[in-house]
Amino acid sequence: MNTDPAVEAELDELARLVPGARLVTDPGIVAGFLHDQVTALPAGSPRGVVMPRSTDDVVAVMAWATRHRVPVVPRGAGTGLAGGATAIDGSLIVCLSRMTTIREIDPQNRVAVAEAGVITADVDRAAREVGLMYAPDPSSVELSTIGGNVATNAGGLRCVKYGVTRDSVLGVEAVLADGRVLSTGGRTIKNVAGYDLTGLLVGSEGTLGIITSATLRLLPAPPRDPVTLVGGFPSLVAAASAVSAVVAAGLRPSLLELLDHATLRAIDDWKHLGLSGTEAMLIAQFDDADADTHAEQVTALFTAAGADDVAVSSDPRESAQLLEVRRLAYPAAERLGRCLVEDVGVPVSRLADMVARIEQAAERHGVQVVTVAHAGDGNLHPTFVFDSPDGAVPQSVWRAADDVFHAALELGGTLTGEHGVGLLKQRWLPDQLGPVGTAVNRAIKDALDPLGLLNPGRGI
Amino acid sequence: MNTDPAVEAELDELARLVPGARLVTDPGIVAGFLHDQVTALPAGSPRGVVMPRSTDDVVAVMAWATRHRVPVVPRGAGTGLAGGATAIDGSLIVCLSRMTTIREIDPQNRVAVAEAGVITADVDRAAREVGLMYAPDPSSVELSTIGGNVATNAGGLRCVKYGVTRDSVLGVEAVLADGRVLSTGGRTIKNVAGYDLTGLLVGSEGTLGIITSATLRLLPAPPRDPVTLVGGFPSLVAAASAVSAVVAAGLRPSLLELLDHATLRAIDDWKHLGLSGTEAMLIAQFDDADADTHAEQVTALFTAAGADDVAVSSDPRESAQLLEVRRLAYPAAERLGRCLVEDVGVPVSRLADMVARIEQAAERHGVQVVTVAHAGDGNLHPTFVFDSPDGAVPQSVWRAADDVFHAALELGGTLTGEHGVGLLKQRWLPDQLGPVGTAVNRAIKDALDPLGLLNPGRGI
Repeated sequence: MNTDPAVEAELDELARLVPGARLVTDPGIVAGFLHDQVTALPAGSPRGVVMPRSTDDVVAVMAWATRHRVPVVPRGAGTGLAGGATAIDGSLIVCLSRMTTIREIDPQNRVAVAEAGVITADVDRAAREVGLMYAPDPSSVELSTIGGNVATNAGGLRCVKYGVTRDSVLGVEAVLADGRVLSTGGRTIKNVAGYDLTGLLVGSEGTLGIITSATLRLLPAPPRDPVTLVGGFPSLVAAASAVSAVVAAGLRPSLLELLDHATLRAIDDWKHLGLSGTEAMLIAQFDDADADTHAEQVTALFTAAGADDVAVSSDPRESAQLLEVRRLAYPAAERLGRCLVEDVGVPVSRLADMVARIEQAAERHGVQVVTVAHAGDGNLHPTFVFDSPDGAVPQSVWRAADDVFHAALELGGTLTGEHGVGLLKQRWLPDQLGPVGTAVNRAIKDALDPLGLLNPGRGI
Repeated sequence: MNTDPAVEAELDELARLVPGARLVTDPGIVAGFLHDQVTALPAGSPRGVVMPRSTDDVVAVMAWATRHRVPVVPRGAGTGLAGGATAIDGSLIVCLSRMTTIREIDPQNRVAVAEAGVITADVDRAAREVGLMYAPDPSSVELSTIGGNVATNAGGLRCVKYGVTRDSVLGVEAVLADGRVLSTGGRTIKNVAGYDLTGLLVGSEGTLGIITSATLRLLPAPPRDPVTLVGGFPSLVAAASAVSAVVAAGLRPSLLELLDHATLRAIDDWKHLGLSGTEAMLIAQFDDADADTHAEQVTALFTAAGADDVAVSSDPRESAQLLEVRRLAYPAAERLGRCLVEDVGVPVSRLADMVARIEQAAERHGVQVVTVAHAGDGNLHPTFVFDSPDGAVPQSVWRAADDVFHAALELGGTLTGEHGVGLLKQRWLPDQLGPVGTAVNRAIKDALDPLGLLNPGRGI
């Protein structure tokens, strides 16, 4: 892959330093590590891919990278949706997927310690064995890794009740740019000793340190299978008002999802479920002891907000079927063309306004958009669908996305609720952070990574 | 107070810059601003006290402080327990207690925006008017201010269910050392744009910026008055095992407090409640719809763990009476002598071990200690009681505290669960953070406050 003898000598040195790690320079294999899910972003040519097996390996890698001024792009399973793991020229890809040890499950203190490469769902499964759960459940939960989830502060469907990844991280172990190992937090519930470095590293997208393991908070597993409700609404405004009513009633669904008309039509064109007459759909779940009562209350609220029909089930198989529509949303969009998935957030009361602004932006620029939302969190995923012979995102889509981002900010919202900034949203980030916020982000980055080696181009 | 003409000229300049703020140099008045609750720590001689009325005032103050290299000590109500607001020589005290506007209550999105000087309980009261609550409830809730609560990441009794202050802060407005205004976060539930500067500022104890307002998350008010349980136990180990049983059962009390024998005896010597035969007491509350059922379950768990008797009440007046014992703990300790209140945290499973270590440390150094704990969080407040003609903390108490801090760290815990580091625990902080953690804390401090003007001596 590299014919420069100096570069080859450096890679030979690296191979000697981390004999237990896998170091790959074969272009055919490296090609599988150039992108996350945002293949529309062009990737550079890295020097190779290293797959550490231990924190010590990562220490050696970063000391080497600092010595030779080699930029590194950390990655896990590559399920990211913001170009956080897109390779850059001359970089070393550091893939953590072989650090797969769950170091500890501590049921008494409801804590798990998992290495970066552990699949997120595996942490949850290990917790379930002792009656606990790991709450964060990004859609990629069966593929994505704890390291990536922590580095991006991943969200998911259950966030509406259980919070985002940050709310489940008690501490992290991270290797800094120069190879020092930083351990933050601990396993106490309360801890105010020093700055919140745990929170700082969560969501830092590999720009401040390479997360090698995390101490995770576990929760009691729900006492029952969830009750699932699905409501079809005659308008998006009606569905949004139902969401507000659920929130106002103080109910705590464990899932509250919105699908817009375009999404339902895309699913229906494929699966013929008779959804095309429905303008908007809400799917809710409750997993607490009083789930049946709450489902009755929500049925009444949905109906009062204008739902044509509300289906309810507490049977696990039927529940899964009702939720299936939500699972079909992305595959249905992908049938229509290439997709750029966005991730804006607004205050919950502005949900209907934001969907309307998304539709206006799409119409204005003549692009197709379908939208699903983690409605209870005000977190929307407008997916732009386009044709592109070379895979590049057309300018019309970027212009529509630009309108959507600025609409989110105007409505008091955010460019990204759970996917991160990555390379994808970098150019809009200063619009949200403002000049002082941008400068402070930059000051922190410079303080922790003065040579700028950690995931360059990401974040600020 | 200052007779140096240069200092006087600078203060005159400051007075002109912030005509709406109050600037006090009268030594008699300034004397009231030299300490927080840790009067045992010696205070320096400040130049004066300024009481801004607006964020613009704070901007002018900090620009002035940077221009003239004047260290500032920010403070709110002065209820801190770690010397976070102890005055230092030559400093300007910046007291935020006159910034008392609740800028907004947004019931739809469950958000409040409150200036730094708003009394914490007033935010809760404003929220209750629209059926919501502000959850954090440090013991000082009727005196302490939002700015101080956010700056120290204050805890409280309800944390065990609702989390610490950080869990309720969506964003902050802070004035940086050079007078720039930083706005972080927003009012969306999910937000991953840029580093978590909100989390970084929460708990930063005035060392990174002066918090002038905060955007706070409100929660639905509990549906009912709480049910209160009090159990007396024949041993501390029995009480600790009852705590573990409650945690293991997945129950979510809204309060779970432990009082040790020394505390109960101190209360009994004063109030003669017949508690002196009880070795340890647990007080629990439930505030959810199923509180009665949960109270029955906890009664059974307390009894199984060896409780001699369990009193239960859902009557508000009786509940208040049952909780009164907890309220008497500090005043009862203060009757015995001067007090140094500590604040260690351990994993919940180590609660009994930690109390035993506290008692051993006290015995070893011949000092008196009484301990209460937010048991459900593993957060203990050993209070050292001593005589001291000049108010200084005796060396024997410091040695016992040193043992207690190191025991907490050995048990996987923290020096401070909710009170903060302040001046009081500064010398032990590197023991917890380690050399890398200490260096990273220092790097962040230097990046944001390069002249070291913000609350010098606090934190790292």
